[in-house]
Amino acid sequence: MRFADRAYEMQFSPIRKFNPIAIKAKEMGKKVYHLNIGQPDVETPDCFMDAIKAYNDEVIRYAESGGVTELQDAVSAYYKQYGMDYGRDDMIVTNGGSEALTMTFLSLINPGEEIIMAEPFYTNYHTFLTSAGGKIAPVTTKAENGFSYATREQIEPLINEKTRAISCISPGNPTGNVLTLDEMRLICEIAKEHDIFVIADEVYREFAYDDRELTSFGMLPEYADRVIIIDSVSKRYSACGARIGLVISKNKDFMSMIMKMAQARLCVSTVDQVGSAGLFKLPASYYEKVKAEYCGRRDVVYEEMMKIPGVICQKPGGSFYMTVKLPVDSVEDFLVFMLEEFDDNGETVMFAPAEGFYATPGLGKDEIRIAYVLNQKEMKRGAELIRLGIEAYNKKLGK
Amino acid sequence: MRFADRAYEMQFSPIRKFNPIAIKAKEMGKKVYHLNIGQPDVETPDCFMDAIKAYNDEVIRYAESGGVTELQDAVSAYYKQYGMDYGRDDMIVTNGGSEALTMTFLSLINPGEEIIMAEPFYTNYHTFLTSAGGKIAPVTTKAENGFSYATREQIEPLINEKTRAISCISPGNPTGNVLTLDEMRLICEIAKEHDIFVIADEVYREFAYDDRELTSFGMLPEYADRVIIIDSVSKRYSACGARIGLVISKNKDFMSMIMKMAQARLCVSTVDQVGSAGLFKLPASYYEKVKAEYCGRRDVVYEEMMKIPGVICQKPGGSFYMTVKLPVDSVEDFLVFMLEEFDDNGETVMFAPAEGFYATPGLGKDEIRIAYVLNQKEMKRGAELIRLGIEAYNKKLGK
Repeated sequence: MRFADRAYEMQFSPIRKFNPIAIKAKEMGKKVYHLNIGQPDVETPDCFMDAIKAYNDEVIRYAESGGVTELQDAVSAYYKQYGMDYGRDDMIVTNGGSEALTMTFLSLINPGEEIIMAEPFYTNYHTFLTSAGGKIAPVTTKAENGFSYATREQIEPLINEKTRAISCISPGNPTGNVLTLDEMRLICEIAKEHDIFVIADEVYREFAYDDRELTSFGMLPEYADRVIIIDSVSKRYSACGARIGLVISKNKDFMSMIMKMAQARLCVSTVDQVGSAGLFKLPASYYEKVKAEYCGRRDVVYEEMMKIPGVICQKPGGSFYMTVKLPVDSVEDFLVFMLEEFDDNGETVMFAPAEGFYATPGLGKDEIRIAYVLNQKEMKRGAELIRLGIEAYNKKLGK
Repeated sequence: MRFADRAYEMQFSPIRKFNPIAIKAKEMGKKVYHLNIGQPDVETPDCFMDAIKAYNDEVIRYAESGGVTELQDAVSAYYKQYGMDYGRDDMIVTNGGSEALTMTFLSLINPGEEIIMAEPFYTNYHTFLTSAGGKIAPVTTKAENGFSYATREQIEPLINEKTRAISCISPGNPTGNVLTLDEMRLICEIAKEHDIFVIADEVYREFAYDDRELTSFGMLPEYADRVIIIDSVSKRYSACGARIGLVISKNKDFMSMIMKMAQARLCVSTVDQVGSAGLFKLPASYYEKVKAEYCGRRDVVYEEMMKIPGVICQKPGGSFYMTVKLPVDSVEDFLVFMLEEFDDNGETVMFAPAEGFYATPGLGKDEIRIAYVLNQKEMKRGAELIRLGIEAYNKKLGK
C-alpha cells in the first residue's frame, strides 16, 4: 500500500534514530553519556509542578484554542521586561515550538515554495517544512567563519519568486551562532525589500554568552508586521516534557490563519499551561544563574574538544550546542562503533551526526552536534570519551 | 502579504467561532447553556491528577516520541479486555485525537487525493485534511434514514483512483450513528477490494446505547493491515484538556511514517501521559456508569426536542451528540439572535450550526448539533430554551 509522497521524503530524527542501539548498549551494562539530545539535566523550577498540584478543577477541560489567559499574560510580561510589546491577541500557545513551526509553514508555504535558512540547522525543520511541501534553500555556513550568514551577499542570491521567508534560529541550534541586532535589522530589511516573512526561532534567547547582548527580532518594531517569533518553555526553563510553545506575531492576517488550525486541534494541554504560567514569571536572576551554568559547560567541552588532534570547531556564542568536525570519514559509522564496540571503564558517549542538519547532500558526514546539557564533570568525561573513541576507531581502521 | 492556499481554504471552527458573541452575552449577565461543544461536565477520574501529583522527577523531561511505556501498556491492556491485541509497537501517543488525524492524513494523502466519509461529520476533519491538501468525498446521510451510510450502494460509486481511505467516526459525531460489526466488516471488505485504508475514529467507543454492542474495527483481525484506529482520552474519561490521543495500527509501514513525524515533534506532554496511564486502567464499572449517565441525558434531550413543532431528529444510538433539523431558515442567524437578543429569565442556549459539518455546499443550513454534555436538568432547560427561542425568532420574522 502506498503513502503520501511527503511521508517518504521525511527522515527519522538523526538525534533519536540511534536510540535503539544505545538502549542495547545500556542493556549490556554500558553507561552512555547523552550529548545527542537537547535534554538538559538542569532542574525544572518548582513553580511548574507547584502550580499543577494546586490546580483543583474537577474537570480537566479544554482550554481556549489560543491559550490560557494567565499564561498569555505571563508571556506578555516576560516580553515587556525586554521592551517588547506583545498582548494576548499577538500570541497563540502551541504544542511546543514544533507545532508552532509546523503551523507557521502550513500557513505560509505552498508545495514547491522555499524558505532561506543557514545550514547546518535544527534537523526537524526538514520534517516541519516537508509537511507543507516546502524546501529549504540553504546558506551554507562553516565553523571557520563562525557560522555567520547574515550578509546580503549570502542571502540575496537565494531569493526568487518561490521564496516565502527567511528563517533564523538565534541563538543557533546546532551552531551556537548569535545574531546581533544589526544583523537582525539587515535580515528584516532584505525581507521587506522582497516582501517575505522572517521566522525567528528564539527558544534559546537568554543563552548568549560572553559580551553578546540578548537580541530578538521583536526588538525591531518597524518590521513587526513581517516578523513571526517561535518560542518555547523547553530550553529556557528546562521543561522539555511540558509541550508548551508559542507563535507570536503582530501580523493579524497571519495570526488569523494560525488560529484556524489552533481551533481545529482544540487546545494545548491544560495542566502544562497552568504550570508554565509560573515559569514565565521567574525573576531575571533565574536566567543569570542558568546562563552561567551553560556558559561554564561550554568552556569545559570546548577546551576538551580542542585537545583532540584534527578537530575543527568554534567556541559557540550561545544556545547549548556545538557543531564539531571530527577526523573520521563517517561520524555515523563512528557512532555505531562507540555504542557497539567501544567503552572506557564501561562508559561510552552518544552525539548527533550532523549530516541530517544539512539541506545540501553530502555535507556534514564528518561533523557532529554536541549538546552541552550535562554538568561540567560529565561534559568533560563525555568529551574525553570522544577523544579516546577516535583513537580506538582510527586504530581499528588502521589509520 | 499572501499565505498558503490551504490557509485560505481552512475555516474557523463552527463550534468555537461564535464564542466572542457568547462572551458578550455573558458579560451582559446572561446565563448561556453550552450545548455547542463536546466538553462534558462529568468529573475527570481522580486517578488522573493523583498520578500527576505523585510524579516527582526533578526534571520534566522529553518523553519517548512514541509515548511513555506505562501509558502504552495501559492502553494495550484496555484493548485486551475487548479481545483486541495491540502492543507498544502498534501505537503512537499523540497530542489528542486531532494530531492523530492530522499525522494520518499527512502520511496517506497527496494534494488532490480523497477520503470517503459520511456527512455530516466532525467539522475539524476539514482542517486536518486540508493540511494535507486532501478532499472529502461525502456520503450524504439523513436523520430520516438513521444517518446510515455503510452500504455498497452508497460507498462504491465514490471510489476512484484518487481515493486513499474510507474514514468512519463510530459512534458518530455529530450524528450518533453506531456501526455494527457487520457494517464494519463490509467497509473493510470494500477497502480491501480497492486497496485503500480504513481510518476508524473510535473516541466514543463505549458510548453505544440501548441494545447496541460495543464495536471496533480492531475486532476484525483479518483486515488489521489496512485499519488505522484513532483514539483519545478526551471523551471516554472526560479529560478533554489532557491532550492525549493515539494512532493505532498493525500496518508497520504506516506506523513507521507516523513515527517520523512523531520524532520531529519530539513527544507529547509528559505529565498528561503520566496522568492518562491511570485512566486506561479504570474498571469496566466506570464505563457502565458514564454510559448510563449519557444515555439518560440523551433520553431527556430527545424527548424535549420532539416537543418542538417542525423539528426533525433521530434518537442517537451513541456518542453524545444529536443532529437536529430546526424549523428556521438559517440556524447561524438564529444562534446570533439567541445570544444577542433572546433570553428567558436571563438564560439562553448555544449550539453548533451544522453547515460546517458538511462537505456538500448548501447542506446543513437549517441543522444544528447538540452535545448532551450537561446534566439532565440542564439539558432539559437547554432544549426548552431552543423551543422558546424558535417561537420568539419566528414571531420576530413574522412567521
